[in-house]
Amino acid sequence: MKLFRFGPVGQEKPGVLTAAGQHLDVSAFGEDYHEAFFATDGLTRLAAWLPGHVAECPPLPAGVRLGPCVARSSKLIGIGLNYRQHGAETGLGTPLEPVFFLKAPSAISGPHDDVVLPRDATKLDYEAELAFVIGRRASYVPEAEALSYVAGYTILNDYSERAFQLERGGQWTKGKSADTFAPLGPYLTPATAVPDPQNLPIWLAVNGETRQDASTRDMLFTLPKLISYVSEFMTLLPGDILTTGSPAGVGMGLNPPHYLQAGDKVELRIGELGTQRQRIVPFRRT
Amino acid sequence: MKLFRFGPVGQEKPGVLTAAGQHLDVSAFGEDYHEAFFATDGLTRLAAWLPGHVAECPPLPAGVRLGPCVARSSKLIGIGLNYRQHGAETGLGTPLEPVFFLKAPSAISGPHDDVVLPRDATKLDYEAELAFVIGRRASYVPEAEALSYVAGYTILNDYSERAFQLERGGQWTKGKSADTFAPLGPYLTPATAVPDPQNLPIWLAVNGETRQDASTRDMLFTLPKLISYVSEFMTLLPGDILTTGSPAGVGMGLNPPHYLQAGDKVELRIGELGTQRQRIVPFRRT
Repeated sequence: MKLFRFGPVGQEKPGVLTAAGQHLDVSAFGEDYHEAFFATDGLTRLAAWLPGHVAECPPLPAGVRLGPCVARSSKLIGIGLNYRQHGAETGLGTPLEPVFFLKAPSAISGPHDDVVLPRDATKLDYEAELAFVIGRRASYVPEAEALSYVAGYTILNDYSERAFQLERGGQWTKGKSADTFAPLGPYLTPATAVPDPQNLPIWLAVNGETRQDASTRDMLFTLPKLISYVSEFMTLLPGDILTTGSPAGVGMGLNPPHYLQAGDKVELRIGELGTQRQRIVPFRRT
Repeated sequence: MKLFRFGPVGQEKPGVLTAAGQHLDVSAFGEDYHEAFFATDGLTRLAAWLPGHVAECPPLPAGVRLGPCVARSSKLIGIGLNYRQHGAETGLGTPLEPVFFLKAPSAISGPHDDVVLPRDATKLDYEAELAFVIGRRASYVPEAEALSYVAGYTILNDYSERAFQLERGGQWTKGKSADTFAPLGPYLTPATAVPDPQNLPIWLAVNGETRQDASTRDMLFTLPKLISYVSEFMTLLPGDILTTGSPAGVGMGLNPPHYLQAGDKVELRIGELGTQRQRIVPFRRT
C-alpha cells in the first residue's frame, strides 16, 4: 500500500495504490493525510480499514492529476550539503554538522505539476532528494530511536533559484520557497515497506540526459543523525516533511553552470518510491 | 475590537477585547482565527456579528491564559537587521536589500508563557518586534498596495539562541525555532485601528531594566517595502505572520554581551498594541 493524493490544486483527495497496482479513491475513509492523520497512526488505521471497504473506493481513471502525497505540513525542512561531492561542486564545502533550512510549505506542489520560473529568475536549479514524513512528535530524539519517528518515504525535487539563494543577501530561504519549488510524491511509501532507506538509487535527468546518479548511502549524515540533530533545535510535528539533501550533478556544479530554462523537462526517480516529471514554464501573472 | 485567543496550550478558543475593555469568549462565532478566517474577511464578519450576539459571549475571568493571538500559520517570516543601529551592534552590518528567514511555526507561544531554554543553550536573546498578519493571498504585490494586504498588527518577541544561530554552521533558522521562541500577542489589532504602523514606540526591559527603546519609524525597510519584497520570493497566505525586525539593544549587542538566564523576566510593549511578559525557565525533559 502506498499513499497519494489526487484532484485539482488545493482540493486534493486521498488515494491508495494497492499491492495489485490499482489507484483507489479512499475519500470514504474520511481523512486527508495531514497532521491529525499521522498523529493518530493513520497509516495503520487506513491499512486495517481498506480490505473491508474496497467497494466504497472507486478506481481512478488514468491521467488524473496527482497532488502532493501528503497535505501541507507545518514545516518543510531541507538539509543542505549532505552529499560529499555536492558540497564540493557548489563551492560551499563539507559541513562539520548538518546544515538545514526551512522551505515555505506554500512551495509544495504535485509530482508532475509544471514548475514556474519566478519573475526575474536566471538560475533555476533542480535537486533530487529523498524526503520523509514524520509520524509522531519528535523532540530531542536519540539516534538509536530516530527511524521510528518516520511514517514514510517519498521524493522531493528541491528546486532552487541560485541567484536568489546566494546572491541577494541573507538566507537560503529566499531561493527555495517560490510556488511550485517543492514537487512532492508521487507516493508516500510507508516506512515498513522500505527496509533500508540508506541504500536507494537516486537519479535525475534533464531533457533525457542523466545529471544525478547516486545512492542514498552516499549521505554525509544519515537519516537517524539528521532526525536526532534537527529535533534538538525544533520540535518536529506529525506530518512534517524533511528532505535530505541532493547528490552531485546539480546545474550550478557543472562547468560551466547550466541552469533550467522554460521548456526543459526534468525527470527523477528514487528506488521503488516512484518517478516525478516536471516541465519548466515561464513566469506568468496569476 | 481586538482579537485574542485563550485557554490551555493547543486548545485555545477565540476571544474579543471590546472597546469597553471587556474580554469576551466568542466561541459562538464558530471559527478560530486561522487561514480560512482571514481568507474570508473574518475580521469584518466578526465585527458585524458581535453586536447582535453579545449575550452568547461570556466575559472571561481575570487571569485566564492567553494563547497566541492567531492560530498557527503556514509561515512565520522574520526580517533581519531592519533597524540601522541593530545591524551595527550585531556586527552583521546594514543589508542592501531586506534579509528574511523562516522561523518554525511550532515555536509560536502565548504572550505571557514561559520561555524554555533549549538544552545546551548558552546565548538566549530577546528581540522586540512589530508583527503583522496577512489578510489575503499576496504574490508580487506593488508597494503602493502592500498595506491593504495586512489584516492586523501584533507583537512578537523573536527569541534567538545566538550560538545556534551563528556558530553552528548554516542558517539562522537553527537559532530561531525552538519551542516557545515566538510569543505572539496579546492582541491582534485590526489594521483599520492602526493609522500609522510606522510610528509606534517599541520598548523592552529585562528584569525591569530598559534594553530596547525605539520607534518603528527607525526601520530600514518600511512595511510596504517588506511585503512587496517578500511576495516576490514566495506567496504569502492569509494568516501568515511577518515580524519586522528588532531595534538596537539586544543582549548580543551589549558590551560585554549579556544573555538571558533562567529566572530572568522580560517585558515588552509596542504602542497601544499591548504588553507581553515572559519568564525564562530552564530546560526540562517533556
